[in-house]
Amino acid sequence: MKLIESVKEFGGYLNRYTHYSVACQSEMTFSMYLPPQAAHSNVPALYWLSGLTCTDDNFRVKAGAQRYAAEHGIALIIPDTSPRGDSVPDAPEHYDLGQGAGFYVNAVQPPWDKHFRMYDYVVEELPHLVEMHLPLIPGVKSISGHSMGGHGALIAALKNPGAYRSVSAFAPICHPLNAAWGKGCFTAYLGENAALWQAYDATCLVQAGAHLPEILIDQGTADEFLVDGQLQPEAFQAACLQAEQPLSLRMQDGYDHSYHFIATFIGEHIAWHAKALR
Amino acid sequence: MKLIESVKEFGGYLNRYTHYSVACQSEMTFSMYLPPQAAHSNVPALYWLSGLTCTDDNFRVKAGAQRYAAEHGIALIIPDTSPRGDSVPDAPEHYDLGQGAGFYVNAVQPPWDKHFRMYDYVVEELPHLVEMHLPLIPGVKSISGHSMGGHGALIAALKNPGAYRSVSAFAPICHPLNAAWGKGCFTAYLGENAALWQAYDATCLVQAGAHLPEILIDQGTADEFLVDGQLQPEAFQAACLQAEQPLSLRMQDGYDHSYHFIATFIGEHIAWHAKALR
Repeated sequence: MKLIESVKEFGGYLNRYTHYSVACQSEMTFSMYLPPQAAHSNVPALYWLSGLTCTDDNFRVKAGAQRYAAEHGIALIIPDTSPRGDSVPDAPEHYDLGQGAGFYVNAVQPPWDKHFRMYDYVVEELPHLVEMHLPLIPGVKSISGHSMGGHGALIAALKNPGAYRSVSAFAPICHPLNAAWGKGCFTAYLGENAALWQAYDATCLVQAGAHLPEILIDQGTADEFLVDGQLQPEAFQAACLQAEQPLSLRMQDGYDHSYHFIATFIGEHIAWHAKALR
Repeated sequence: MKLIESVKEFGGYLNRYTHYSVACQSEMTFSMYLPPQAAHSNVPALYWLSGLTCTDDNFRVKAGAQRYAAEHGIALIIPDTSPRGDSVPDAPEHYDLGQGAGFYVNAVQPPWDKHFRMYDYVVEELPHLVEMHLPLIPGVKSISGHSMGGHGALIAALKNPGAYRSVSAFAPICHPLNAAWGKGCFTAYLGENAALWQAYDATCLVQAGAHLPEILIDQGTADEFLVDGQLQPEAFQAACLQAEQPLSLRMQDGYDHSYHFIATFIGEHIAWHAKALR
């Protein structure tokens, strides 16, 4: 693990690292905000999973989260959205497939199956790595994300009860097997295996019995991807109701899909995670 | 004046406008954050001047200022750093001259003198325009900025006592006639006229008797442009001391020149301006 950048912010340090990922069989880059409290004690961690086309850079620059992370003494861990590089397959004509669009699954279809194992990377390898090398409290972690990353956060938590103290999401892709982005990536990465599709779909996971203490979701009502059916929080809400899965789905009037929406509510999310991480 | 983009954030709206500028003889773009309070009453304004290479986009995306503007009920007005377009002169091989580097002066040298009149644009035309069309309290305004924009904020306030309720700056170019960036732009835009150079130099303005109630400056100690002499807060501090100009120059340990530095302290600056704008 190599530190390639370190910038002071809110009394802590916003760092960027590269390392070789065994899961993804390639170099990976991630960012991490270490709050001032980490200078003298281990701190809990909030993982943030970003959306389509993002790298580790978007959230650290646009969300305004470091301020709240410093306030609550929480580290932010911000992985990239896929493996990258010349030796990694891509679909450069599609923004929603290949590099920048890992969808937080373990691909089983060629040519994606060698490198596109973002589920294992985010859920297993990265926490192991950062807990070993950085001032974190082992195992004390929560997860959140946006859009494709909201989907990633929901499935990471639903598939691993007890692994995360809390989970929240901004405008998540709640039912990917029934939406265009999800269908495109699932077909490419997972093939025609319906059981695999369901295993990476938050709505199906709740229907199949996955259960968590509580889930927090913020969704803007002026989100263009809500309107065109990519996100489907209503399907997830119906599944949660049916399964008695506690869900706080907050429809935020007039907000869109951008980081300005995330910036508006990230403080409330971090405060909410902080309670669970205490 | 044409509204080309509007995004909800922190209960208010982050808007982007284009208009024809008489001062700059070209179309100009600016951003403006209208806090939620502007929905029912006129609000005071804080002008933000950005640094070299920036457009109106950098501050609105990276600084995290909207949160504090919403809290205090202050509009943020964020002009571009120069006129732009195919009909506007440029020096594409230099990031620090031409488009993106207006330096907040009125150029008198060809080919810059027709369009590069950012001083008049920022100090006169833009306030007149936005106070006419938007829910602002006429004349109740403050100003801040970063690097080249910190220089712009200081000279706008020092040259117009009473026009701004307060002025602050992040890592400003305090003595441009004695630093590489300033010399390059002043030579190109102003020619060899020493009196004109002094008229756009904050340190010289204080030496010449300009006086304000108080000036707030934050400067990171790990700022690479501090080290190489582009900023020279010590020259400005010496001039202020000599002239009994109240100055709060805060050397912030370990911070660099980036927006992460701005994000860390913008909340304190906005709170400070809010007091003066009340």
